[in-house]
Amino acid sequence: MKKDLNLKDNRMRLKVVVPVITEKFVEPTRKEVEKFISGDTEVDVQNIRYGTASIEARYDEMLCALDILRIVKKAEREGFDGVYIDCMGDPGVEEAREVVDIPVVGPARVSMLVAADLAHRFSVITVLKNVIPLLEEIAVTTRIVEKLASVRSVDIPVLGLEKEGRLLTALVSESKRAVNRDGAHALVLGCTGMRGVAKRLQKSLKEEDYNVPVIYPVALGIKYLELLVSLNLSQSKKTYMHPPEKERNVWEKLEK
Amino acid sequence: MKKDLNLKDNRMRLKVVVPVITEKFVEPTRKEVEKFISGDTEVDVQNIRYGTASIEARYDEMLCALDILRIVKKAEREGFDGVYIDCMGDPGVEEAREVVDIPVVGPARVSMLVAADLAHRFSVITVLKNVIPLLEEIAVTTRIVEKLASVRSVDIPVLGLEKEGRLLTALVSESKRAVNRDGAHALVLGCTGMRGVAKRLQKSLKEEDYNVPVIYPVALGIKYLELLVSLNLSQSKKTYMHPPEKERNVWEKLEK
Amino acid sequence: MKKDLNLKDNRMRLKVVVPVITEKFVEPTRKEVEKFISGDTEVDVQNIRYGTASIEARYDEMLCALDILRIVKKAEREGFDGVYIDCMGDPGVEEAREVVDIPVVGPARVSMLVAADLAHRFSVITVLKNVIPLLEEIAVTTRIVEKLASVRSVDIPVLGLEKEGRLLTALVSESKRAVNRDGAHALVLGCTGMRGVAKRLQKSLKEEDYNVPVIYPVALGIKYLELLVSLNLSQSKKTYMHPPEKERNVWEKLEK
Amino acid sequence: MKKDLNLKDNRMRLKVVVPVITEKFVEPTRKEVEKFISGDTEVDVQNIRYGTASIEARYDEMLCALDILRIVKKAEREGFDGVYIDCMGDPGVEEAREVVDIPVVGPARVSMLVAADLAHRFSVITVLKNVIPLLEEIAVTTRIVEKLASVRSVDIPVLGLEKEGRLLTALVSESKRAVNRDGAHALVLGCTGMRGVAKRLQKSLKEEDYNVPVIYPVALGIKYLELLVSLNLSQSKKTYMHPPEKERNVWEKLEK
Amino acid sequence: MKKDLNLKDNRMRLKVVVPVITEKFVEPTRKEVEKFISGDTEVDVQNIRYGTASIEARYDEMLCALDILRIVKKAEREGFDGVYIDCMGDPGVEEAREVVDIPVVGPARVSMLVAADLAHRFSVITVLKNVIPLLEEIAVTTRIVEKLASVRSVDIPVLGLEKEGRLLTALVSESKRAVNRDGAHALVLGCTGMRGVAKRLQKSLKEEDYNVPVIYPVALGIKYLELLVSLNLSQSKKTYMHPPEKERNVWEKLEK
Amino acid sequence: MKKDLNLKDNRMRLKVVVPVITEKFVEPTRKEVEKFISGDTEVDVQNIRYGTASIEARYDEMLCALDILRIVKKAEREGFDGVYIDCMGDPGVEEAREVVDIPVVGPARVSMLVAADLAHRFSVITVLKNVIPLLEEIAVTTRIVEKLASVRSVDIPVLGLEKEGRLLTALVSESKRAVNRDGAHALVLGCTGMRGVAKRLQKSLKEEDYNVPVIYPVALGIKYLELLVSLNLSQSKKTYMHPPEKERNVWEKLEK
Repeated sequence: MKKDLNLKDNRMRLKVVVPVITEKFVEPTRKEVEKFISGDTEVDVQNIRYGTASIEARYDEMLCALDILRIVKKAEREGFDGVYIDCMGDPGVEEAREVVDIPVVGPARVSMLVAADLAHRFSVITVLKNVIPLLEEIAVTTRIVEKLASVRSVDIPVLGLEKEGRLLTALVSESKRAVNRDGAHALVLGCTGMRGVAKRLQKSLKEEDYNVPVIYPVALGIKYLELLVSLNLSQSKKTYMHPPEKERNVWEKLEK
Repeated sequence: MKKDLNLKDNRMRLKVVVPVITEKFVEPTRKEVEKFISGDTEVDVQNIRYGTASIEARYDEMLCALDILRIVKKAEREGFDGVYIDCMGDPGVEEAREVVDIPVVGPARVSMLVAADLAHRFSVITVLKNVIPLLEEIAVTTRIVEKLASVRSVDIPVLGLEKEGRLLTALVSESKRAVNRDGAHALVLGCTGMRGVAKRLQKSLKEEDYNVPVIYPVALGIKYLELLVSLNLSQSKKTYMHPPEKERNVWEKLEK
Repeated sequence: MKKDLNLKDNRMRLKVVVPVITEKFVEPTRKEVEKFISGDTEVDVQNIRYGTASIEARYDEMLCALDILRIVKKAEREGFDGVYIDCMGDPGVEEAREVVDIPVVGPARVSMLVAADLAHRFSVITVLKNVIPLLEEIAVTTRIVEKLASVRSVDIPVLGLEKEGRLLTALVSESKRAVNRDGAHALVLGCTGMRGVAKRLQKSLKEEDYNVPVIYPVALGIKYLELLVSLNLSQSKKTYMHPPEKERNVWEKLEK
Repeated sequence: MKKDLNLKDNRMRLKVVVPVITEKFVEPTRKEVEKFISGDTEVDVQNIRYGTASIEARYDEMLCALDILRIVKKAEREGFDGVYIDCMGDPGVEEAREVVDIPVVGPARVSMLVAADLAHRFSVITVLKNVIPLLEEIAVTTRIVEKLASVRSVDIPVLGLEKEGRLLTALVSESKRAVNRDGAHALVLGCTGMRGVAKRLQKSLKEEDYNVPVIYPVALGIKYLELLVSLNLSQSKKTYMHPPEKERNVWEKLEK
Repeated sequence: MKKDLNLKDNRMRLKVVVPVITEKFVEPTRKEVEKFISGDTEVDVQNIRYGTASIEARYDEMLCALDILRIVKKAEREGFDGVYIDCMGDPGVEEAREVVDIPVVGPARVSMLVAADLAHRFSVITVLKNVIPLLEEIAVTTRIVEKLASVRSVDIPVLGLEKEGRLLTALVSESKRAVNRDGAHALVLGCTGMRGVAKRLQKSLKEEDYNVPVIYPVALGIKYLELLVSLNLSQSKKTYMHPPEKERNVWEKLEK
Repeated sequence: MKKDLNLKDNRMRLKVVVPVITEKFVEPTRKEVEKFISGDTEVDVQNIRYGTASIEARYDEMLCALDILRIVKKAEREGFDGVYIDCMGDPGVEEAREVVDIPVVGPARVSMLVAADLAHRFSVITVLKNVIPLLEEIAVTTRIVEKLASVRSVDIPVLGLEKEGRLLTALVSESKRAVNRDGAHALVLGCTGMRGVAKRLQKSLKEEDYNVPVIYPVALGIKYLELLVSLNLSQSKKTYMHPPEKERNVWEKLEK
């Protein structure tokens, strides 16, 4: 942490991890992230080499976590000021917070905390039923589950999200159910692959008189990381202690 | 809300309310706030005319809320993009969120939510015993109270905080008690009048091997408001509905 | 507190505050309250001069709280034994409990606590959607929210409650939904303006085989205050400490 | 339930059950109860014939519950308006609420609910360590356990409570520990055998600057029952349904 | 507790209490229990003499608890290694745990804890509406209520459960409602009289694509007791202290 | 799942995973586990090839999870009836439960659930401070955290646990603090490396009048798995859905 709290120098370099093994999401993610960062922030976006093509299970998260961790550790060595891991399962975030001192942020926990500020109850609208228990568990460990109205799914896999028309229609209809049946007062998009749709969703809902905030986790995640870095804040080393030294033989295998 | 989500225009005008009747805190607050805002942000700092000299009770909050509300409503009419109310009791925040559409933020709830992200448990170190129940209640309504390790006080009234030496000594000693006895992993300064001391507190604690984040609510509150405005987010109008029209005869009395 | 616990003297003088600016509710409230108090109790009913015509928002509560506080402080000086504030938002109750030693009671928290004694889960049936979050928040701060099945509204504003036929029909229908859909085992009327209807509601429900207690908050609030006074009990001065002395310039403005 | 809600007739007959097998507590309980009831209330105090000499375990409660139930059922047949069971374990209260329609009240749950109204956190000071888990469990089933600061014991058995000097000294010292160490803002006496000491305890504490309400459960229990009867309220028959008809062969054995 | 933790001797003698006054359930229970115990376990099944014909209310539980306690105490004197009380209300379990040192187990709490391990949320499907509050309360005192999706009933009294066809149909239909409407991921049969139906229910549900575990409480209860005994574990004597000595006159009356 | 619920055939084959990269714990674990399994159970104990030498951080868990998953999947293919993963962090348990149908069990969650049955509150005594937040989080996701009195550490790393004298002394002293200061009524050993010490700890504590159950997680974990298998129970496929098919490129790298 090199910032001086009394010095108006908001320049920072952030690492963005796209935690899937295909490169094709790197460029869209960079474009998306650059819409939101401030002029003083520089981002470097990078995908993982080993893991899975998308994340739709705890199993996928575990398979991706190793290479996420490699990137996070390298980012700290290279002088980055913080890391944002762009997936709504917050994969590797807890583990990474142990091994580095710079702040590590995922979009899920943070989106829920901000939703909890803006509204009495919020719902998350995600991709597949498979990830519902996983997102509920993030609400539980964040201790904000009393404010979680529901997690709903549009029943479209991550790799099918690009057909925007179908996605928007499904989001509008699940969002209305979340408000009417579950009592949601705010909505969180439940997958970082739901790019470019938050604004239109909020507009569509407002036209039908559902005036609720829609949180776009990619935008929120990167802005929240900027906020932490600018305030020289990072995860507590009492909650995330550095792992003791010992023999660990996975890295050599993967690096071969 | 006039921002366009797809347009990289982060210019914004924020209103900062100093919710006490003396002008002498306006200039120091402006200086403090300007340390943290980004280059594109413009702030206007203003104190209230009717209320109390400091806020150390629910009673004080209530007495100040009226003139806070007047300023908030005027700020929206004048095109401000958001309002930050600079007091750890979050006075008038809930009421103000009903009457305007622009985001209204206080430092207390937000500091607790960020502390909840950074650590398993956090403590708030405040001024007088009087405000402990009030701060505990903010943790309860925020539904984050399971992560609140304790609220402790340095036993110095708001208007005595300017003797920094005594304040720092007391903060260090209560912070250590919060960590050792209450299990806190992060700390939140419990009064916005504790200016300029967060960094030194964190440094002093670290020298004694208490490596925990210290959240400075003034800095966090204004940065969080910037984040909301830049993402075009505001409080839910389902949780904070506009009050119905009716006869209200207080304003004319105060405006006389 | 002048009572002697060992002396069978239940005579007491209670102040009832009607926290709206029109006088027309004073007489009906007095009549209603006098149905329930014991022979030894004397009540004085009084409305506020500055505030709002009805309370349907946190904003309204804040506007009314100032003049409520003035009346409460005066009541203590004049030797009243306790104060009952007749509105289901419990406006000014927390603040008033700080500035006086005599017990101050509102109907909302108390109705919820008694409902929690009589049943596993209860619902509140209130006037407008606007006040639902506010009533939910009272359940949260009372820490009894796990027993709150739901808050429902009849969608009639406070000033329209006097058409009893429509009110009763709407109450019966929302009450049945609360029992069937939300699992309520007891009901609380959610506005003190719902006068004279509790008994008929309970009867109508019973005829349709919905045998659940219906709590009428006006009756309960005043009886609960009598109970506290007769037992020489009042709010804890550890939770509601006296506000420290300081400059406060609102009163002079209002008193002009 | 024979009261008419619109009729100012507060006359009522209440049954008080002393749930131990010795008669010697009947007269003192009657005297105690009569200090608190209103002029229109008539009480009949009666002890059980089969059970235990005192209640200091779940086992004791179970042994006493049978004869308590017999008395409660008889009380309803004889036209009593409500029943108060005078023991801080609330023995037989839940079961009795199923078999009769008139309100049945014990002092424990009710004392905790009132303490929860008067203060942020409360402690119960009871007789022996044995009953601490039992009292904690009442706080859990009442769903008010977040407000329970602690249950402490003076380490004096029920049948040794009559030496008032020793009792008062022990109560003062445990009460101060409850306030200082556990953060209690209100106190509840944890055994109905602690007669005549609440007022002196509160006075002693106040002299040492511990200004907290002390709830005397006997007084509160009987007054609360009066309140329910006067408002025509009773336990919900959805939570406490009448047990279905079937063969039950215990009564004949006990009645022989 | 006579087992030696280091000695592979799993022989044990368990007492099974059938807590109803008819003998006709003893033989079926013995057959059922013997399907699940290991080869080294010996069981003795016994019904009570005084109590009720079935348990469908807190009142019934109380009437049966006395004779359950007599059997439990005798079982310990006769050298049994543990006691299983075969009723989903866990009648007498808490009381019995105080008076003996050998482990005492009922099926309800244990079924809920295992369901909480296997799934995010579970539902209990029971006999009559009467016992729903009672089962909910067991979830509350077990502190696992956040994982309880619902308690539903098939509306068949205990003594009508033997018509298996009707029972299975009703169970299938309520189970599907529990999954679809309440979000249950696992199911618990809510009455020990639902014998021999768990396996067929799970199969029927699976055929309709409801692949969820179905917990049969009789099987689980006896296996869990075996587990405790084999590990030399029993209830904590800090939570379940031995009741102090005193006069208790019920037993002589019942034994006459 | 091949068992027939109606057939008294308790033979089963269980896989035990020792989730560290050194072989030296395999033989002691096998001996330990064989003390507790029933005569019909066959176990196969196996350590991982890639991971860490011990588990003392979330980071270590993540590094070990990959090879744990490989073993679990292979075990199902080879016809094992269940898998027990022998580490108090329950590493890989949640992920493994998604990819197989046979039950997967770790000791931590299960020990906490059984402790919650036996006592009002329990403490876990673990190795290093590093793992305290991790164990607290297991209590949170298990939703049993209200019963967790504390997690304490003996400040001995996993690889230093073999000096039994020092370990026992440290366990006795932390256990007494857990009972006295934190109110624990039961204790759970917080590391599966604490072999052979549970019985002596319970004895030492009892001699000093601390009569509380001590749960040895290795013994409990394997017995609990036996219980699930014998009852044909496994994790819910609604909570742990099978991950969708997709490209995953980690395995080939590790298998090279």
